[in-house]
Amino acid sequence: MNLEELAERIKTFEGVTRKKQIEDIVSIFEAVRPEYKNAIVDFGDDAAVIDIGGDDVILFAADGIWGRILDASPWWAGYGAVVVNVNDIAAMGGKPLAMVDVASSSSDTACRELMEGLAEGVRKFGVPVVGGHVHPDTEYNSISVAIIGIVKRDCVIRSDTARPGELVIAAYDMDGRIGPNSPYSWDTTSFKTPMKIRETYLVTQKIAARKLVTAGKDISNPGTIGTLGMLCETSKVGATVDLEAIPKPDNVDFEQWLKMHPGTGYVFTAKAEKAEECIKVFEEAGLTAAVIGKIEAGSKLDIYDKSGRVTVFDFSKESITGIGSE
Amino acid sequence: MNLEELAERIKTFEGVTRKKQIEDIVSIFEAVRPEYKNAIVDFGDDAAVIDIGGDDVILFAADGIWGRILDASPWWAGYGAVVVNVNDIAAMGGKPLAMVDVASSSSDTACRELMEGLAEGVRKFGVPVVGGHVHPDTEYNSISVAIIGIVKRDCVIRSDTARPGELVIAAYDMDGRIGPNSPYSWDTTSFKTPMKIRETYLVTQKIAARKLVTAGKDISNPGTIGTLGMLCETSKVGATVDLEAIPKPDNVDFEQWLKMHPGTGYVFTAKAEKAEECIKVFEEAGLTAAVIGKIEAGSKLDIYDKSGRVTVFDFSKESITGIGSE
Repeated sequence: MNLEELAERIKTFEGVTRKKQIEDIVSIFEAVRPEYKNAIVDFGDDAAVIDIGGDDVILFAADGIWGRILDASPWWAGYGAVVVNVNDIAAMGGKPLAMVDVASSSSDTACRELMEGLAEGVRKFGVPVVGGHVHPDTEYNSISVAIIGIVKRDCVIRSDTARPGELVIAAYDMDGRIGPNSPYSWDTTSFKTPMKIRETYLVTQKIAARKLVTAGKDISNPGTIGTLGMLCETSKVGATVDLEAIPKPDNVDFEQWLKMHPGTGYVFTAKAEKAEECIKVFEEAGLTAAVIGKIEAGSKLDIYDKSGRVTVFDFSKESITGIGSE
Repeated sequence: MNLEELAERIKTFEGVTRKKQIEDIVSIFEAVRPEYKNAIVDFGDDAAVIDIGGDDVILFAADGIWGRILDASPWWAGYGAVVVNVNDIAAMGGKPLAMVDVASSSSDTACRELMEGLAEGVRKFGVPVVGGHVHPDTEYNSISVAIIGIVKRDCVIRSDTARPGELVIAAYDMDGRIGPNSPYSWDTTSFKTPMKIRETYLVTQKIAARKLVTAGKDISNPGTIGTLGMLCETSKVGATVDLEAIPKPDNVDFEQWLKMHPGTGYVFTAKAEKAEECIKVFEEAGLTAAVIGKIEAGSKLDIYDKSGRVTVFDFSKESITGIGSE
């Protein structure tokens, strides 16, 4: 494995580069940030954190599905929209409460498939779709889903709170399948029972309540290293990752695995004394978890193995989302 | 004015007929409604009502913008997405807390215009956009916005709670302009100061807190009669409307006005002894409000003037959304 080439391919991977647009968008909204601040966290995390005055805070997120996945299968787009939204709440340590959707479709068939995929997600994850809007007569198909969740104010798992010296933990559900619509999609839910799925995604609520971690994100399109990169960028820290420590399913190529968007996968950071307990809680829920690296002072995310060490991202010179930059 | 023809044109108006799709969609989700019920209200109202266990409930809604408005002006689509979402929360008596958006765009220019329209909505209404997702490389432009709000549990203004004998009140901001992208759009906000706008949309929070009304909706694409029709359908009641009692701006055609989607406009129902106070509160906030009819037992929404009376909708034979039907 040539580390230099691997680092370059991770950095230029479309799952990572597509995040760049976010920077411009956020700057437009920063100029009009309203005078009252009930948003404790907004852009740059998996979900925004909204203060409603009590012990609980509301988590609020939205996601859409890539055009190519939607065209390949409206059913998977609808189903996948539920998965990514539930993951946004789970990554923050929250309990998902409800979703709304806005769907556009060019045909009755595509619309019905989209909705049936969404409905299957509702059945599997047990989070209701409570409203939404359908454009039945567009020239394209699209699906956007927003979700709300709830969590105790002092238990929120943010992504801008990692500090140097903390350990990086990756956790994945290894019982999965590639695809069907992308070589970088690791489906871990569609073939499992609702009870099994809920047991798995409830684990982050337990980790949050027991305050085992200091920061975290769900692994999404940028893959394991790209997602950790986003966490480092918003936390204004660097990291080192031991490639040989990353758990991987048998029969999946390692580079492909690093770029994979898993149905259930997290990058969390923890103080050294809490790492073992955190891994134990993940493993009791059926995930495979391991310490894969360390948060460092500075601005570089490095990967290493026995052959050497290279920098994948240097946030003093470049950005993924640009949100953590001054 | 030929009442028969007017009734037919209201009923077959696209703003009304486009609501029909909702029925099929809801039936898909009813089959998978999760076993735990934290949604007090879901489909069929302006916003879903989510129980979070305390005195307050969370309101949650989503809306997208018609393709033709988006193509005519991405700026107006972004701005309009804020207006319709804020109205969904206002119609329920709630305080809007935050929005998220999912945008797709085919060009940097369209994307920027969309976002600048959204940002202007944030500035005017004082409700922040706290997150979202952008697809920068689609073949089409689209914008979906979701919003959350908060209201006391016992103050929620629902649309399925109107009862026979109650009065129908319509309230509008008369200080508006037609268009610019649709003859059925009555813009009452884009040219006003943030302070003026917030004073106007805060009025429903006051009406909710004082429990002056029994049900209500914001007037949207189906116009005044179509929106009242949706309220009657979900409440399983009929209504009679005195056309001559409907307030109307000078220099706007009456039929066009009936089909108008106002920036600020509501159809509320109230017990007779509360109607006067409700109208007074609306008028103190600068709206023009009047009793325009009465909720009736049965399934017919009738309109009348001195020339006669005709039925626009008979929900025993037809539906707008289909949600109120057994």
